[in-house]
Amino acid sequence: MGSKVGEFRKKLKIVDVKGGPNEGLDRVGLMIVVAGWVRTLRAQSSVTFIEVNDGSCLSNMQCVMTSDAEGYDQVKSGLITTGASIWIQGNVVPSQGSKQKVELKVNKIVLVGKSDPSYPIQKKRVSREFLRTKAHLRPRTNTFGAVARVRNALAYATHKFFQENGFIWISSPIITASDCEGAGEQFCVTTLIPSSREAAESPVDAIPKTKDGLIDWSQDFFEKPAFLTVSGQLNAETYATALSNVYTFGPTFRAENSNTSRHLAEFWMIEPELAFADLKDDMACATAYLQLYSCMQVRYILDNCKEDMDFFNTWIEKGIIDRLSTVAERDFVQLSYTDAIELLIKAKKKFEFLVKWGCDLQSEHERYLTEEAFGGCPVIVSDYPKEIKAFYMRQNDDGRTVAAMDMLVPRIGELIGGSQREERLEYLEGRLDELKLNRDSYWWYLDLRHYGSVPHAGFGLGFERLVQFATGVENIRDAIPFPRTPGSVEF
Amino acid sequence: MGSKVGEFRKKLKIVDVKGGPNEGLDRVGLMIVVAGWVRTLRAQSSVTFIEVNDGSCLSNMQCVMTSDAEGYDQVKSGLITTGASIWIQGNVVPSQGSKQKVELKVNKIVLVGKSDPSYPIQKKRVSREFLRTKAHLRPRTNTFGAVARVRNALAYATHKFFQENGFIWISSPIITASDCEGAGEQFCVTTLIPSSREAAESPVDAIPKTKDGLIDWSQDFFEKPAFLTVSGQLNAETYATALSNVYTFGPTFRAENSNTSRHLAEFWMIEPELAFADLKDDMACATAYLQLYSCMQVRYILDNCKEDMDFFNTWIEKGIIDRLSTVAERDFVQLSYTDAIELLIKAKKKFEFLVKWGCDLQSEHERYLTEEAFGGCPVIVSDYPKEIKAFYMRQNDDGRTVAAMDMLVPRIGELIGGSQREERLEYLEGRLDELKLNRDSYWWYLDLRHYGSVPHAGFGLGFERLVQFATGVENIRDAIPFPRTPGSVEF
Repeated sequence: MGSKVGEFRKKLKIVDVKGGPNEGLDRVGLMIVVAGWVRTLRAQSSVTFIEVNDGSCLSNMQCVMTSDAEGYDQVKSGLITTGASIWIQGNVVPSQGSKQKVELKVNKIVLVGKSDPSYPIQKKRVSREFLRTKAHLRPRTNTFGAVARVRNALAYATHKFFQENGFIWISSPIITASDCEGAGEQFCVTTLIPSSREAAESPVDAIPKTKDGLIDWSQDFFEKPAFLTVSGQLNAETYATALSNVYTFGPTFRAENSNTSRHLAEFWMIEPELAFADLKDDMACATAYLQLYSCMQVRYILDNCKEDMDFFNTWIEKGIIDRLSTVAERDFVQLSYTDAIELLIKAKKKFEFLVKWGCDLQSEHERYLTEEAFGGCPVIVSDYPKEIKAFYMRQNDDGRTVAAMDMLVPRIGELIGGSQREERLEYLEGRLDELKLNRDSYWWYLDLRHYGSVPHAGFGLGFERLVQFATGVENIRDAIPFPRTPGSVEF
Repeated sequence: MGSKVGEFRKKLKIVDVKGGPNEGLDRVGLMIVVAGWVRTLRAQSSVTFIEVNDGSCLSNMQCVMTSDAEGYDQVKSGLITTGASIWIQGNVVPSQGSKQKVELKVNKIVLVGKSDPSYPIQKKRVSREFLRTKAHLRPRTNTFGAVARVRNALAYATHKFFQENGFIWISSPIITASDCEGAGEQFCVTTLIPSSREAAESPVDAIPKTKDGLIDWSQDFFEKPAFLTVSGQLNAETYATALSNVYTFGPTFRAENSNTSRHLAEFWMIEPELAFADLKDDMACATAYLQLYSCMQVRYILDNCKEDMDFFNTWIEKGIIDRLSTVAERDFVQLSYTDAIELLIKAKKKFEFLVKWGCDLQSEHERYLTEEAFGGCPVIVSDYPKEIKAFYMRQNDDGRTVAAMDMLVPRIGELIGGSQREERLEYLEGRLDELKLNRDSYWWYLDLRHYGSVPHAGFGLGFERLVQFATGVENIRDAIPFPRTPGSVEF
């Protein structure tokens, strides 16, 4: 009792040995311990090679063992197979092989946990479709390990960018009674259906009803219908109009029944909101954010994520490093929606969806603009027709467009969507009425215009799209650990 | 078209002027622009004082104006009232007052948005209960502005701590079909009830049913019952057993019908998970995290959050700075559950809940241990009876306790709860069976023990409790921007 708990020390990981600029040569001569999972084992007549990975980096540690190593009998007996977890002590030595600078000469090996022969991730290449059914094991592969590390780097860089620029992170609510986009497609959150084990066998009749046969919401947890948020923006506005600059970074949801490689039912969004700011400030912020990002990606190549990015460049999307460099270095193109439409109409390309003023831009149009019309440079399209944009966007003086902007990037299309918000009470109320949205449900949002309203602007960025953009993975389901899509809620 | 979007530059905030070590004296002589919200206005015969706040710090900028300032007519006409937003240009001058080192001599003032006389946050003190009904405006008060800034600092410090120690942030799923704690109390997520505007008027009969009258889950979005997660731990384990050290930081949910000052239906959790680690490593990590935190808090007093912490120390909880210093500097006490029970039985204090071996510790017991028995030092209690802990905790050799630990801190009680996880397949399966939990629903969790199982451990920390701990706010509803509790889902 009363004893010191002991100091927390990071245990040595493979990245600590091999991650340095000379790939571990400065560690030669050290006796170290490596703990991880066996990727492959090759037994030759006098020597056995084990590739061990601990997920701290893409690289395995090649462990070289002769029969005099302690614990060699476990190797000999065939217990140490792909997927098994082991603990190895050995000396860092220069490698004879060409694939790495250093390897580990094993003194002692301990089998920590064996791997059942049914282990589904053997050396042979497995499809990403198959791996989605093994989402609990896929981070043990090169691709998904690298995606996880780059995703992490992008998240941290996001926080760093906003924190260093004076933004305050706020958590917008996940469960909400309001509908930010006014578009429906929300998941209902309820306790009227009993939880977990009983739900599957639950009769419809057990749901409380009023004497008119309607769902009796007064008996629900929140005593009224509640939903999963589709955006934290409206809530972020309340904090921006108090603290000046804020951002959210949290999960958002769409109950959209679209089974595409671009949509998730649950995804993470980054939503900065700037007070005393207009659309130009908004664009400048989005540009700075993305360029900083890309710069960081490029710098990472000479730093932490080098291996992972080289891996993507080689195996997932050739040229991705160049593409990111372009984003980091070039001035972004900016043009109005009206000019963009003109450009698309004049384009020699055949589009599936017809283009005319007033139409929403489809992915094919967005990609044409950034990939072909402007040769891989990100494009910011602004001032969209008000009919195709949300109620809260600020009306331009022309009466038919709003101060909205979308940032389009190669391969992804729309990565960022933002706008200046309507700060004028009468315009905002007018727009709600036009769209038959109930003013009363937006009372607190309207209050922001009653009490010290200010010009303000912000944008939303789908984090998984950014992960796709930075890694080249084609299907958005591979950009998040546990994707949720129609019919799919496993794990 | 094609023009440069322009450079993103942070606009000058009040913190940039007054936040430095000499509270703005180095800015004297500069002409600056301040944009924010009026806190108070005092008109004297020849001079008017306006206190402006922009949320970048606790401090207002005192603006001093005479009748020759441009825009003075707006002041005179009474349009500039508490809550109005204004834009002021002026010169930084040394202040005559004792409350600040510098003030702004106004050249020009622009009323940006007036404030309706009904503005509910006037100078007179308003109760925190009342402010909860104005959650969209409360960040404009001193207390809630300070809470937001400290909450932000804590979140960023969390990311920094884990990132700098080689942990990878992963997003565990929010919508899930599994029940981590096996305890029920989950919110159901469904599209069987139509969204938003239609939900309120929706008949029970419209919910699809099977011919047996059961809810027809095959027609739901996920084709089976789905819930909001109560913890990301099981998912985090899948990534820890691939990448070694990971952490989650995201929202979690409990549909617990408890209307207390300690519970939220929606709250943020931090859940690190360490592979090749035991309970001791887990405790060391939790200690390092909290001590780093507290150190940062203390350092913040000499840095960014100084003002906010002084404010809490004066107005919310006297002595909070000392309390945090204690946490930062003292070795934490560690004792077993069995010893803790003995200590509680011997205590001269009368508890509401009887103490005996096997009982769960109540908040009163936890607070007695940390506040009285060990004089304000955090206490780690370990090795709890298995009956009161979750199925996934590792069984100790005594057969009746598990390798669990709770960290107790003054005023809060349990801040952190963690454990070593059961990595032995047969023990884990046995425990699931004992608790009548269905092995099949945990197939992927069991897989981690089939394929290269490793000792691993982790903990969960309720972020809002940490905010309470660091700021002294008594009700957890004041530690999150938009609290969700039974019957309350406004905003």
